[in-house]
Amino acid sequence: MKRVYNFSAGPAVLPEEVLKEVAEEMFDYQGSGMSVMEMSHRTKLYESIIQTAEKDLRELIGIPDNYKVLFLQGGASQQFAMIPMNLMKNKKVAYIITGQWAKKAYEEGKIYGEAMAVASSADKVYSYIPDCSDLDIKDDVDYVYICENNTIYGTKFWELPNTKGKTLVSDVSSCFLSEPVDITKYGVMYGGVQKNIGPAGVVIAIIREDLITEDTLPFTPTMLKYKIHADNDSMYNTPPAYGIYICGKVFKWIKKMGGLTAMKELNEKKATILYDYLDQSSLFKGTVVKKDRSLMNVPFITGSDELDAKFVKQAKATGFENLKGHRSVGGMRASIYNAMPIEGVEKLVEFMKKFEAENA
Amino acid sequence: MKRVYNFSAGPAVLPEEVLKEVAEEMFDYQGSGMSVMEMSHRTKLYESIIQTAEKDLRELIGIPDNYKVLFLQGGASQQFAMIPMNLMKNKKVAYIITGQWAKKAYEEGKIYGEAMAVASSADKVYSYIPDCSDLDIKDDVDYVYICENNTIYGTKFWELPNTKGKTLVSDVSSCFLSEPVDITKYGVMYGGVQKNIGPAGVVIAIIREDLITEDTLPFTPTMLKYKIHADNDSMYNTPPAYGIYICGKVFKWIKKMGGLTAMKELNEKKATILYDYLDQSSLFKGTVVKKDRSLMNVPFITGSDELDAKFVKQAKATGFENLKGHRSVGGMRASIYNAMPIEGVEKLVEFMKKFEAENA
Repeated sequence: MKRVYNFSAGPAVLPEEVLKEVAEEMFDYQGSGMSVMEMSHRTKLYESIIQTAEKDLRELIGIPDNYKVLFLQGGASQQFAMIPMNLMKNKKVAYIITGQWAKKAYEEGKIYGEAMAVASSADKVYSYIPDCSDLDIKDDVDYVYICENNTIYGTKFWELPNTKGKTLVSDVSSCFLSEPVDITKYGVMYGGVQKNIGPAGVVIAIIREDLITEDTLPFTPTMLKYKIHADNDSMYNTPPAYGIYICGKVFKWIKKMGGLTAMKELNEKKATILYDYLDQSSLFKGTVVKKDRSLMNVPFITGSDELDAKFVKQAKATGFENLKGHRSVGGMRASIYNAMPIEGVEKLVEFMKKFEAENA
Repeated sequence: MKRVYNFSAGPAVLPEEVLKEVAEEMFDYQGSGMSVMEMSHRTKLYESIIQTAEKDLRELIGIPDNYKVLFLQGGASQQFAMIPMNLMKNKKVAYIITGQWAKKAYEEGKIYGEAMAVASSADKVYSYIPDCSDLDIKDDVDYVYICENNTIYGTKFWELPNTKGKTLVSDVSSCFLSEPVDITKYGVMYGGVQKNIGPAGVVIAIIREDLITEDTLPFTPTMLKYKIHADNDSMYNTPPAYGIYICGKVFKWIKKMGGLTAMKELNEKKATILYDYLDQSSLFKGTVVKKDRSLMNVPFITGSDELDAKFVKQAKATGFENLKGHRSVGGMRASIYNAMPIEGVEKLVEFMKKFEAENA
């Protein structure tokens, strides 16, 4: 059985240990005589799966009781609408535009009210995080929105913006559970799970309770009301039950690995191996301003489209998959999420060195 | 390894053959070196999975080119809003209320326009399908809405309503692919897959092309526009990729079983075994008017709450799971979807006979 090193930006590599357990439980989950895929969500057994997942997530992040954890559907793209529909009271929102996903959220926000772009790094192909220490944030904005780790461009907010006391809403899809966070700094932290946590089709939203109200915009679909999901413990209708089960397994795996502090150490170690090599290579170079580099997504280029293509092709043939960069940046991108083993990065760098020598 | 007979109303039993393949491919899908769960949806390999799934579904049902097949998220509950948001032009809609799910769709419809309940079987706990041959359907309604098989109550539209030429929208969640259908009679046929097709978290909507327009209600979220999904072949954002892969496997399984005609024969055989027994039993009786009985969901009662509870408990101990009826009907319900083997129903009836003899 073949396994590759999978540098996909998402859906992405999952811990082999988790896949092994999932395969073993496919016919008979813990003596129930059925797969979790076949299990009514209205049973004690499934309730224990979703409740344990939530409990473990709360423990990992350290989520206080005044925050709700919701398991939702529709990806981050659906949150782009759900957030304004639920949180816009004054119909004014500040967006910080650090890439395609923040921009999409901003465009969607405009459907529902006055969405203001208070900062942007579009001028340099989103290769940096703008200074957000003193932005023009109006007194009556409902929230300040960021995409905390930018999957396509490989940047990360290492310091949260000064929101001037306003609610911070953050899309953490591509850095979810990659490091410890202080959730109390956020009003809403949410992300699709398909990068660091599980299969596509589950979104986890962690929301401060006072932001969850019945006072939504007119015409908000019932399924897009946070309160409906919060009041029903994410079981208003059938949840993406199997995906949540996988997420729960990954939470257990992270706990076993030592929690988010250990995860961050490991992620720093992996990223350092790659960035250190990039910084001294005469062939490859990173595309992001050093201080804003992501630990998760590492874009790099050779400067020649032909060499880039040759590299991606040879890498694939050697067992390094999905290294082609996003079309808007070009070149290559290595996504090195939690489940990417350190050997994967070491071997990639070895391969890059060899390629560099051969193509000097 | 234990397997039970799982009579759950959904998520529900899946073909063992499919689960076996899925478990085998968990580490390495067809030599790719990764699980489908880990696979970028923007790869040729995944594209072939979703495209093959669509092709097989089109073949099974016989879907002509002027219908789009969309793989969506959010369950039927999200369609309750998505349908009016996309299809309401005159803001008038006719709903036929045959159970809780049709009622929920109707209530959601009221958010967006004039939703009219043109028929209902609420007077007898939804135990029958009302006469829909000559309903008061206004000339300017946008569509007539039905829930074709009522999971909770065990009824089925064996004849489609006379819509007076208006567009028919049908929720087929609990009878999806259980029998041949003439899709050209429908404007929209949709269903959650978690009963007959796959894991919860995927909705399949089959929509006549002319109904998919940019002319949606104001404030319709981008993710709730059919056109966005149709224009992007269900890949506007990351789809519920793993669930779709399982659906694809089930389509192949149905094809191998002989397609929808064979499926219907098998389903009739299973249902007949159970209904024939119920009709001659002096202990158990069905709750549904005979002509409206579902082939998929079979509710029955003893008439005594105590005996019902005793039956469910003993059945569970014998390996028949999830036979407890929905609280609004009481008693028992056996959901006998496509993947329930005929032996499951035979053994259940055997057990019921024994129980009847012991409790006469």
